[in-house]
Amino acid sequence: MKSDDFDAWLVAEQAAVEAALEAWVPADAPAGLGLAMRYGVLDGGKRLRPLLVLAAAEATHGARAAALRAAVAVELIHAYSLVHDDMPCMDNDVMRRGKPTVHVAHGEAQAMLAGDAMQALAFEVLTPEDEPAMPPALQASLCGLLARSAGHAGMAGGQAIDLASIGLALDEKALRDMHRRKTGALLQASVLMGAACGERSPRAWDALSRYGAAIGLAFQVVDDILDVTQASETLGKTAGKDEHHNKPTYVSLMGLEAARRHAYELRNQAHVALADSGLPDAARLALLADRVVERDS
Amino acid sequence: MKSDDFDAWLVAEQAAVEAALEAWVPADAPAGLGLAMRYGVLDGGKRLRPLLVLAAAEATHGARAAALRAAVAVELIHAYSLVHDDMPCMDNDVMRRGKPTVHVAHGEAQAMLAGDAMQALAFEVLTPEDEPAMPPALQASLCGLLARSAGHAGMAGGQAIDLASIGLALDEKALRDMHRRKTGALLQASVLMGAACGERSPRAWDALSRYGAAIGLAFQVVDDILDVTQASETLGKTAGKDEHHNKPTYVSLMGLEAARRHAYELRNQAHVALADSGLPDAARLALLADRVVERDS
Repeated sequence: MKSDDFDAWLVAEQAAVEAALEAWVPADAPAGLGLAMRYGVLDGGKRLRPLLVLAAAEATHGARAAALRAAVAVELIHAYSLVHDDMPCMDNDVMRRGKPTVHVAHGEAQAMLAGDAMQALAFEVLTPEDEPAMPPALQASLCGLLARSAGHAGMAGGQAIDLASIGLALDEKALRDMHRRKTGALLQASVLMGAACGERSPRAWDALSRYGAAIGLAFQVVDDILDVTQASETLGKTAGKDEHHNKPTYVSLMGLEAARRHAYELRNQAHVALADSGLPDAARLALLADRVVERDS
Repeated sequence: MKSDDFDAWLVAEQAAVEAALEAWVPADAPAGLGLAMRYGVLDGGKRLRPLLVLAAAEATHGARAAALRAAVAVELIHAYSLVHDDMPCMDNDVMRRGKPTVHVAHGEAQAMLAGDAMQALAFEVLTPEDEPAMPPALQASLCGLLARSAGHAGMAGGQAIDLASIGLALDEKALRDMHRRKTGALLQASVLMGAACGERSPRAWDALSRYGAAIGLAFQVVDDILDVTQASETLGKTAGKDEHHNKPTYVSLMGLEAARRHAYELRNQAHVALADSGLPDAARLALLADRVVERDS
């Protein structure tokens, strides 16, 4: 696949995800709640998780309508986690995606409720009553994958480790365990939710699971690199905050160059997993792995 | 049914719910998260929502294993909402069920994460991979009912209205709308989730939906009454806080005696709905409606 084609695909799919979020995150939820939810999820972000869902669904010939719902659900979980993570009792961040964070713009109470309602909305989007492309078995499977990746064993558990590890000297194993949960679980779930929309073969499922684990970790290694090498302006959020908060990172643990090498190793693991999958249409997943590692924001 | 039998049923079912929560809310979730989750949900509460699930499942001959999962899921949503609601940016309550609130005992960040993880866990409990009593169609149905009652159109939306209405003079229609969402939606969903575990007839479903709506509203009217008539010690939480926070209530709107009459009217509506249901085994649902109205804490 040519890079031009891939770029065009990215732009088109980002627009499709934006339109679906626009349609499904209600502006008219009571007392400003809908506005806070929309502020927290619309018009920003690279939409990496939805892109992984859509590419994995495409590679496994999943129904488009189902994949788009799964993509929106994953992004809602990601966005709610950012809304809560930015609050004063957590990271106390005032800037995100180049604009004031939700609690700065809408108040802390509304930000907490908006995050809570976004998590619920993810499961609403996955359980439509009138969508032929989403039979009940698929709905149940998607809800299960999403809940497990978002909960205590996944994202929320990783955040708890993150909170508890500020100022501590984690070794690489402990750091990897934290990131596998905190960001890796939802990235891996994105791939598997896309695959769940398509034809299931144990071989492809296992390979995509390994692909998702590799890019999930690569994403965090690159995040740690960007936090020390990029300006806040490029990132659209506060740079240098890991060091400021005295958080352990791949860069503080192994140094900048070794962290870069590690990110490329993980990219290669992702490519190998795709080759093992037996899927003929996995080119976009391969290019997404490249983008995860080569991004500059 | 004799009152003694009903009391024995209540005690036995509360113990069954407690044991299921004990088994399914993980103590070993990372970095104290599991302990905060368990602190927020175990060993307290009347378990009204689980009791409604179990009684409705019994009335419709639903599978016990499915009903117990639905009961735990609903209680996890209720408990997470209390954890978040008590936080300083919301009600800033320091006491709940007779003990310090989660953020007082575990810190604000952990309380927010625990609430988030409890919401995810509710959907994990509803999507077991190996439970013959919960076919995928039931899992999907339960996830959909729970998500809609917890989200922007239900509980979270009601809380947003509540936040926005402090100090405002709501009329009865606006107050009813707020409470239908804030507490009514999840109580009604409890009844319907129980019914979803059983045999579906449109007649029973419609009647149980009306029963759930009536007791949902009755619960809140009684809550407002208890807030002004009971001491904090009896309630196990801070009494008089509605007036203190200048929140509109049924008592401030219609006066104490009219609020009491309204609660009994709603109880009667619930009984009429049960009579319309055609269900022969609805005695426990009728007695639960009585308890909702006659409780003193």
